[in-house]
Amino acid sequence: MSEELRPIDKLKALVRQRSAERDNLPLEERRRAMDATLEVFGVPEGAEVNETELAGIKTDRIVPAGKTPQGRFLYFHGGGYVLGSPRSHRHMTALLALKTGRELVVPDYRLAPEHVFPAAVEDGLAAYRALLEEGHAPGDIVLGGDSAGGGLTLAVLIKAREEGLPMPAAACLISPWADLKCNSGAYESRAEADPMIDQSGIAEMAALYLGGAAAGDPLASPLFADLTGLPPLFIQVGDAEVLLDDSRVLAERAKAAGVDAMLDVWPEMIHVWHAYYPMLPEGGQALGDIAAYLAKIAGGKRLSA
Amino acid sequence: MSEELRPIDKLKALVRQRSAERDNLPLEERRRAMDATLEVFGVPEGAEVNETELAGIKTDRIVPAGKTPQGRFLYFHGGGYVLGSPRSHRHMTALLALKTGRELVVPDYRLAPEHVFPAAVEDGLAAYRALLEEGHAPGDIVLGGDSAGGGLTLAVLIKAREEGLPMPAAACLISPWADLKCNSGAYESRAEADPMIDQSGIAEMAALYLGGAAAGDPLASPLFADLTGLPPLFIQVGDAEVLLDDSRVLAERAKAAGVDAMLDVWPEMIHVWHAYYPMLPEGGQALGDIAAYLAKIAGGKRLSA
Repeated sequence: MSEELRPIDKLKALVRQRSAERDNLPLEERRRAMDATLEVFGVPEGAEVNETELAGIKTDRIVPAGKTPQGRFLYFHGGGYVLGSPRSHRHMTALLALKTGRELVVPDYRLAPEHVFPAAVEDGLAAYRALLEEGHAPGDIVLGGDSAGGGLTLAVLIKAREEGLPMPAAACLISPWADLKCNSGAYESRAEADPMIDQSGIAEMAALYLGGAAAGDPLASPLFADLTGLPPLFIQVGDAEVLLDDSRVLAERAKAAGVDAMLDVWPEMIHVWHAYYPMLPEGGQALGDIAAYLAKIAGGKRLSA
Repeated sequence: MSEELRPIDKLKALVRQRSAERDNLPLEERRRAMDATLEVFGVPEGAEVNETELAGIKTDRIVPAGKTPQGRFLYFHGGGYVLGSPRSHRHMTALLALKTGRELVVPDYRLAPEHVFPAAVEDGLAAYRALLEEGHAPGDIVLGGDSAGGGLTLAVLIKAREEGLPMPAAACLISPWADLKCNSGAYESRAEADPMIDQSGIAEMAALYLGGAAAGDPLASPLFADLTGLPPLFIQVGDAEVLLDDSRVLAERAKAAGVDAMLDVWPEMIHVWHAYYPMLPEGGQALGDIAAYLAKIAGGKRLSA
């Protein structure tokens, strides 16, 4: 490693090495390793974290300290439906609270293989319903998530629409995993570029989550769902990730269904690069772009579909 | 946090927040949190880590993969004699192996309060003696360490000299903690600037390590030792740390004792900033400077005292 490398190059080398080490660990150790992100990066100054319950689910609620939050942001963490927690993502959700001025609401939804599909969708929907029942106007709520949490965001929106619940103001998807068939062209075209995810590893997570359900089920793989009536979608994805096509195809299908979808592809960036913002300037910039998008939505400056 | 902040400013904010969170945790959790650094930063590509035993002590031995190491580097990790491990520092020792071309030898010396002074010194000396017994020429060995590991390096050198062992080629000290009285002027002048260490916190660690021994004991606080006959010392310290005077006074006393001591004060840097090299360019640069210093020593380009 040389000092002359750019932050993204250093990060790619680091992630490549670390992924190789981790992929063979037992699930419990992989979960612990993911939570360790918080131990190192910490919570940014100025964020107030409250560990609460929402709809019976352990939930982080994070606000900018001493300020009245400008609406709610229901956030689903990533981790392939088998890893991750509000804790593993707290450095990132706390920064989102500071940047958006919203209360970040981060439920610890049930994970596979202990709890298979559709447990996560049920928990996500319960959290959204509970927020509505707290009395927040749908237009003051946004949803979002990264990786599996991005797919889960879409599944929750679809399920909410099916149950006749009002739609939130928007949804922000960070490197969403929306197709559990795991066979898009990007798995090949980005195999070399992606230092984190390989096809067999993610297919294994899909199998653990599905627990026998069909990968084509629209609530497991919302890429195959009818997306009509969804709120505006802001989709960020890196060009150096095997999930690139999940975002590309999602944006196409959403637009075809009349949804106001915006696709933001970042050259050279890797899966959920936002999580590395303390060492990667583009991470903080991408989180800032989410805040800017939501400010436009809240100001009515972006037309809803 | 804004994207416009420089890496060192971001790091200071992060460390300040994190230190506040951690200081109230039980010791076991603080140890776990420190080990977590490795979970996030990983081991750089090209380093081969072997977990072995040396003198009955669990020891990391790390080499540049596929290369013949250019000598040994016996390294003592920091953590106030109560925290830290070869694991918590492996991302850094592995990079030192790559940059210096040496085999890094990192013993898991006993920690307080389970094992008080002079257990760490005994383990350190045993490791040095074992390296000599492996047949390595003293001139091919260097010692070093960070924080408490820097103080321990000095204590081991002094003890080795007392026992008539040959001196190694040099020692590299990163933000060494050499005065367990913890009352130098820098504790006041750098109190605001230092986001990591405060006087009461470090005094508590000193008390745990000393276990009733005198803080002025020269093997606990080598600042008060006779430094005559020590090998060349390369001392790096940040200007934003309360341990600044430990290094300043050490360099003065070493020079007064005829030791070839070089003091390298880095403006704005914090305690052991090297450990943050994946997010702080100055971290990698400082590790590179250690490699450059040792290359000069090995090439006979720097005169020994």
